[in-house]
Amino acid sequence: MKALLIVSDGMGDRPNKKLGGKTPLQAAETPNLDYVAKIGCCGIMDTISPGIPPGSDTAHLAIFGYDPYEYYTGRGAFEALGVGIRIYPGDVAFRANFATFEEQENGLLVTDRRAGRKVPEGGKLAEKLNKYRLKTAKDVKFRFEHSVEHRGVLVLSGSGLSYKVSDTDPHETLQMVHECKPLDDSKEALKTAKIVNELNTAFHEILKNNPLNQERISRGEPPANGVLLRGAGILPKVTPLNQMYGVSCSCVAAAALYRGVAAAVGMKLFKAPGDTATYETDEESIARTVLDILPENDLVFIHFKPTDNASHDGNPELKAKMIEKLDNMVGKLVEGIDLENEHYIAVTADHTTPCSVQEHTGEPVPLVMAGPGVRTDQTTAFSEIDCQRGGLGRLRGKDIMPIIMDYLGKTRIFGS
Amino acid sequence: MKALLIVSDGMGDRPNKKLGGKTPLQAAETPNLDYVAKIGCCGIMDTISPGIPPGSDTAHLAIFGYDPYEYYTGRGAFEALGVGIRIYPGDVAFRANFATFEEQENGLLVTDRRAGRKVPEGGKLAEKLNKYRLKTAKDVKFRFEHSVEHRGVLVLSGSGLSYKVSDTDPHETLQMVHECKPLDDSKEALKTAKIVNELNTAFHEILKNNPLNQERISRGEPPANGVLLRGAGILPKVTPLNQMYGVSCSCVAAAALYRGVAAAVGMKLFKAPGDTATYETDEESIARTVLDILPENDLVFIHFKPTDNASHDGNPELKAKMIEKLDNMVGKLVEGIDLENEHYIAVTADHTTPCSVQEHTGEPVPLVMAGPGVRTDQTTAFSEIDCQRGGLGRLRGKDIMPIIMDYLGKTRIFGS
Repeated sequence: MKALLIVSDGMGDRPNKKLGGKTPLQAAETPNLDYVAKIGCCGIMDTISPGIPPGSDTAHLAIFGYDPYEYYTGRGAFEALGVGIRIYPGDVAFRANFATFEEQENGLLVTDRRAGRKVPEGGKLAEKLNKYRLKTAKDVKFRFEHSVEHRGVLVLSGSGLSYKVSDTDPHETLQMVHECKPLDDSKEALKTAKIVNELNTAFHEILKNNPLNQERISRGEPPANGVLLRGAGILPKVTPLNQMYGVSCSCVAAAALYRGVAAAVGMKLFKAPGDTATYETDEESIARTVLDILPENDLVFIHFKPTDNASHDGNPELKAKMIEKLDNMVGKLVEGIDLENEHYIAVTADHTTPCSVQEHTGEPVPLVMAGPGVRTDQTTAFSEIDCQRGGLGRLRGKDIMPIIMDYLGKTRIFGS
Repeated sequence: MKALLIVSDGMGDRPNKKLGGKTPLQAAETPNLDYVAKIGCCGIMDTISPGIPPGSDTAHLAIFGYDPYEYYTGRGAFEALGVGIRIYPGDVAFRANFATFEEQENGLLVTDRRAGRKVPEGGKLAEKLNKYRLKTAKDVKFRFEHSVEHRGVLVLSGSGLSYKVSDTDPHETLQMVHECKPLDDSKEALKTAKIVNELNTAFHEILKNNPLNQERISRGEPPANGVLLRGAGILPKVTPLNQMYGVSCSCVAAAALYRGVAAAVGMKLFKAPGDTATYETDEESIARTVLDILPENDLVFIHFKPTDNASHDGNPELKAKMIEKLDNMVGKLVEGIDLENEHYIAVTADHTTPCSVQEHTGEPVPLVMAGPGVRTDQTTAFSEIDCQRGGLGRLRGKDIMPIIMDYLGKTRIFGS
C-alpha cells in the first residue's frame, strides 16, 4: 500500500462574483478531482483551527501531523533545508535578501529590498562575507549561502542562540533597516540580536566596497550592498515520519519552504523538471516524477504552487485555470496508480486564500481521500461547498497523516 | 466590515410531543432566520464540549473566544460588572440576596430566599451594612451594593483572597444558612471563608434591628434581615477582545450576567429601552439600539433572554412564540444592514434548555453565519435538525469569535 498526498497551495476560496458566485474550484472543469471525490470520501479541514489563517510553514507542519502550536520554531530553518543547506539542532537560520542600502545620518535606508532581483554575483559576494569573524561572540560561527536570484540563507551556529529575535528586514522599501531585537527576555535572544546587528553593519561595509558592486553601479544596476534578514528559525524537535511510522517518504516540490518542511519531517526531496512553481509549471512532468519515485516510497507528498499565486494576484479566472492544471496532474497520477487495490490518494489545500482578499484566511479547505476500502459518501464533485457535506466531516490538519498512515497499515493500536 | 452576534438564551431544545415532535425552533414561524440560513452557512455548536451543559457565564465566555476551562473564575465578578459595580483584579465578588432568616438554636433558618422579592429599602440597608468593619482581617475591605429587587453584590478587596469558597445560600427555603467553606487547601480560601462567615453573622445582627425591617414586619412583609451569598468570583485574566483583535465591540443586553461577561472581555454596554429580558421585551427596540450603535462598532453582541425563560417554565408553545419575537428582531436587523457587501450576522444559542427538562442540557445548539463571501450550504431552514447537515459542521463555542474576526479581517496569520 502506498499513498499520494497532494497539497494545492491556497486552493480554498470564497464564492466569487466574477465567477457567478462560484468558487474557483467550483468554476473549474475538474473531471479527475470529481472522479476521486465520487469514488472516495470528502470533508473539510481546518489546517490549524477554525478561523485561524495558517502560514505556509505552520500549515504544512500540521498536514504532516505535527501540532504547530507545539512544534513551530520559525521559518528560517525550513528555508535553509529547502535550498539544500545543512543545518543542525541549535543552529539559527534566517531567510536573507541581497538588498540595496543607502547610508543616511540616522542609519541605513533600504532603496531596493531585492537589489534588482538579479544578483549573479551572489556566490562570490557570499565568499567575502563568510571571511568575516564575529567580534561580539567568539563561540558563534556563521555561514551565509546564496541560493537563487537575490535570495540566500544566513545560519548561526554555536552555543546559547535563540530564534526569538526580530527581522532586520523592514518588509517595505524606503524604510530604514530595522535593528534586530530580542523577542523575549532570555540572554540567548539578546546575544543573537547583538550578533545579527553586528553582521548587518559588517556585511554592508564588506559589500559596499566590493568591486563587483562597483561594476553593478557602473552598469546602472542597484548594488547588492546589504543583506536583509527575516524569519529566524531553528529545526523543530520532531520525530520524523520515517522514524515515527517506519515509512519511506518523499517530497516532490519546487519552492524552498515546502521542500524544507518536508525535509525537516524526514522526507527525501525531489524536483520535477519543468516544475517552476509558477503559472507555467509543467504539471505532467510533476506526475511523471511522482510515478517514477513511487516504487521506492510508501508516501509521496506533492506540492502544487500556482493556485496560490493566482490567489495572491487576485485573479479567480486564472486560479480556476491553475486548478484545471492541478486536475490534469491528478488525472495523470490516477492513470498511473491502482486506487482499487494498492494506492491511496489525498488531495487538499494548505489554506484558503480568497482571490477577493489576496491573503490567507481562516476558512477550512476541501479534502478528499480515496483508495482501497475507503468509505464512500454522496459527494460527486470536489469543491469547498460540496465537501462540506462529505463523509469525513470537519477535520484538523494534524489528523490527516494519522489517517493516511492508518490506511497504509503503519499505525499502532493505542492500548490493547 | 462589521458583525452582529446574536445569542438567543437557551434556544436549543429537543423534539417535543406538545409540538407534534418538533422543536420550538422548528414549530415557530421564522421567515427571517430561515432567510439567513438560506443565504448563509449553518452548523451545530457545542458551546463547551459534547454532552456538557454550559452555565450562562461559561457559555458566553466560550462564545466570546475564551476556553472556560482555562479562564472561568466564578460568576460573582460578572454579576458585579453587569450591574455597574467597579471591581478590580484580585477582588472577590459574590451574588447576594436580601433574604428572611429565622433564628434557631442551631443557626439561621432561611424562610424566604428573596425577602418577598420587593426590597425598596435595599439601598438604605446597604449603607448600614457598609459601616461595619471586619474583625477577622484588617487588610480586607468590603462593599455591599444593592442592585434591583432583592438582589445585590458583595465585593471583598484586599490581599490574600480567593474565590474558591462555597455559598452561604442553601439554594432552597427552609434550609439552614450554610457555613462558607474553603474549596481548596489554600490559606487564601480559608481566610476568605472566615470573612464571609463573619459578615453573614454581622449582617444579620445589623439588619434584624434596623427600623426599616420593623416597618416591613408591621406591614406584614418578610423582613430583609439577612444576606445570602453565592457564586464567588474574580475577574478572569483575559486579554479583552478590543486589545486582542483591535476592534471596537459593544453589547446590547438587559440581564446583568451577560452584560458582565461582555464587559469583562472589553465590550461597551448598552441597554435598549423596553428590553425587559422577559416575555414582554421590546425586540424591535433592541434592533433599533443595535443599528444605532453599529456605526461606532466592529462587533455588536446581542443577548435575547425570553427564549430561556420559556424553557425554564417548561412551555414549548410560549418558547416558539419567543423565537418568533427573536425572528422579528432578526428581520429588523437584516433590513438595516447589508449582508452582501458590508455586514456579517451570526445567530446561535448559549445552550440547549429543553422545555421537557427545564434545565440546561449538553446538546449542541444551532448556528448560522451569513455575510459577504460566506460559503453557502444546502440549509434553507434554521433549526436544531436542519443545522445538523450544515456546511459549518460541528464547532465549539470558542471557535466562533476567531471565525467572525477572520471575516472582519482582524486575525493574524500564524506562522509565515
